[in-house]
Amino acid sequence: MKRIEYFTRQEGDPAPLEKSVRRVVRFNEIDPMNIMWHGHYASFFEDARVALGDGYGIGYQDFYRQGYIIPVRRMQVDYLSPLQYGQEYEIKARLFYTEAARLDYDFTVLDLQGRTHARGCTVQLILDKKQNLLLAKPAFFEDFCQKWRLGQL
Amino acid sequence: MKRIEYFTRQEGDPAPLEKSVRRVVRFNEIDPMNIMWHGHYASFFEDARVALGDGYGIGYQDFYRQGYIIPVRRMQVDYLSPLQYGQEYEIKARLFYTEAARLDYDFTVLDLQGRTHARGCTVQLILDKKQNLLLAKPAFFEDFCQKWRLGQL
Amino acid sequence: MKRIEYFTRQEGDPAPLEKSVRRVVRFNEIDPMNIMWHGHYASFFEDARVALGDGYGIGYQDFYRQGYIIPVRRMQVDYLSPLQYGQEYEIKARLFYTEAARLDYDFTVLDLQGRTHARGCTVQLILDKKQNLLLAKPAFFEDFCQKWRLGQL
Amino acid sequence: MKRIEYFTRQEGDPAPLEKSVRRVVRFNEIDPMNIMWHGHYASFFEDARVALGDGYGIGYQDFYRQGYIIPVRRMQVDYLSPLQYGQEYEIKARLFYTEAARLDYDFTVLDLQGRTHARGCTVQLILDKKQNLLLAKPAFFEDFCQKWRLGQL
Repeated sequence: MKRIEYFTRQEGDPAPLEKSVRRVVRFNEIDPMNIMWHGHYASFFEDARVALGDGYGIGYQDFYRQGYIIPVRRMQVDYLSPLQYGQEYEIKARLFYTEAARLDYDFTVLDLQGRTHARGCTVQLILDKKQNLLLAKPAFFEDFCQKWRLGQL
Repeated sequence: MKRIEYFTRQEGDPAPLEKSVRRVVRFNEIDPMNIMWHGHYASFFEDARVALGDGYGIGYQDFYRQGYIIPVRRMQVDYLSPLQYGQEYEIKARLFYTEAARLDYDFTVLDLQGRTHARGCTVQLILDKKQNLLLAKPAFFEDFCQKWRLGQL
Repeated sequence: MKRIEYFTRQEGDPAPLEKSVRRVVRFNEIDPMNIMWHGHYASFFEDARVALGDGYGIGYQDFYRQGYIIPVRRMQVDYLSPLQYGQEYEIKARLFYTEAARLDYDFTVLDLQGRTHARGCTVQLILDKKQNLLLAKPAFFEDFCQKWRLGQL
Repeated sequence: MKRIEYFTRQEGDPAPLEKSVRRVVRFNEIDPMNIMWHGHYASFFEDARVALGDGYGIGYQDFYRQGYIIPVRRMQVDYLSPLQYGQEYEIKARLFYTEAARLDYDFTVLDLQGRTHARGCTVQLILDKKQNLLLAKPAFFEDFCQKWRLGQL
């Protein structure tokens, strides 16, 4: 199967940031078809996104403290192979560089043999607390992106 | 905002089937940003999809009894405006006609003033119980589609 | 089976307040044993408790506006007979009168034939926004209880 | 606060079996009061119960393979202090010895400073696949209990 790409990198963009978390399929996540219920992947993506965001100081709470919220505007999930009860797996989040005032994440769900079970992405907008959409990155996040471009993270 | 379309109808395809369900935003569905957590929409879509599928005799259990499973292969959600605690809303599912052995649903989440809060879609494949992908529709579902084309549902 | 009673009424206490809500067992609520997952009953109880609280103006948000929070201090669930996929059921909440600064709810989960599937209770404390436990009811809630005792609700 | 005890040990009973799992409070587990939603503790208890059961070969699937199901008949949760977003915590499960055909677990939710945030218990019955309640332990589980009594686990 051809690898799905959700975002395209521009010439000169720094490499995506990466972070992985591990989980085990839980009893109450299994659906009547005896596989991981498809609706749970949003929370897996969130786990990895939060780990990356918090790890780099650009998480939901970091934005909030600066006066911004970062709601999810779009989510896509491609289910390739279902996870089974008790199976251990890894969720890898990657944050893609973009000039826009936006957070573009993609996700890969892998088992410990390296087999891909799902792929997906989320796009988050940046709003101020009056719910106005930001067209430019807030200063603290622009600083972060500057370091990212310069390889100083 | 331009309306998002996930599926394209071919010349001569019968109109999509429709079904709506109503819900109220629940306390434990609200996230720390004080809006409906984005991960819950998968279950809203499922509610409407199940209501339509069961209503027409082409639900998950109808397929299962015939020897097939219909896992979700892809889901997309576009979040336009967040739902608030206590708000009443409607989820409208539409099943699109396709020649392929597949179930193409789109979804619209509306408040009672008719304002769209989210749009989305799911694509389900049809597998036999040995997990083989069906390339043609199973007989009972082809019969159903025949009636659909003839306006006899 | 003897009916389980979680709270005892004192001589002269007004009758409990009652409110019911209806639901249908959803696909993603079913566990690998093909029954309603036991962990979901907390949300069913909450649905009925919220409906009663909001209906009488003593809900979570009514307390919050007055400067109080009402966290759950204890929950108990007795599972008598599992709910099946697609089954319609009713959750009946009853709020018991008490002299204490507390909200004592019990719950009954019934199918449409009147068969009891589960029973349970929650006890909520009343805290001010500095997290101090209230020993007496706040004024607006004492007014409410006064009307309740006088049969004026 | 006096420690809550849900089960009483008889003279000569072997010590409870123990197992702990660790978790981090997730974004979507936080409720509008900005604390862990009380309904999630059922899943925390389940995580620790599953880890203990699977670890000792007496988990849900071990019973199932022998022809038995072990539904939860009763759950109780005592909430002592709420968990906050991002907080790391441990859930300790203990299985208590009993002569009855039953699984008696208690649970303690602790933060990494050793502070108890919640306590609780579950009682599971043992049914055969025709839903008949077992009055005596099935042979494989009686063997297990024998080893437990003899300190041979």
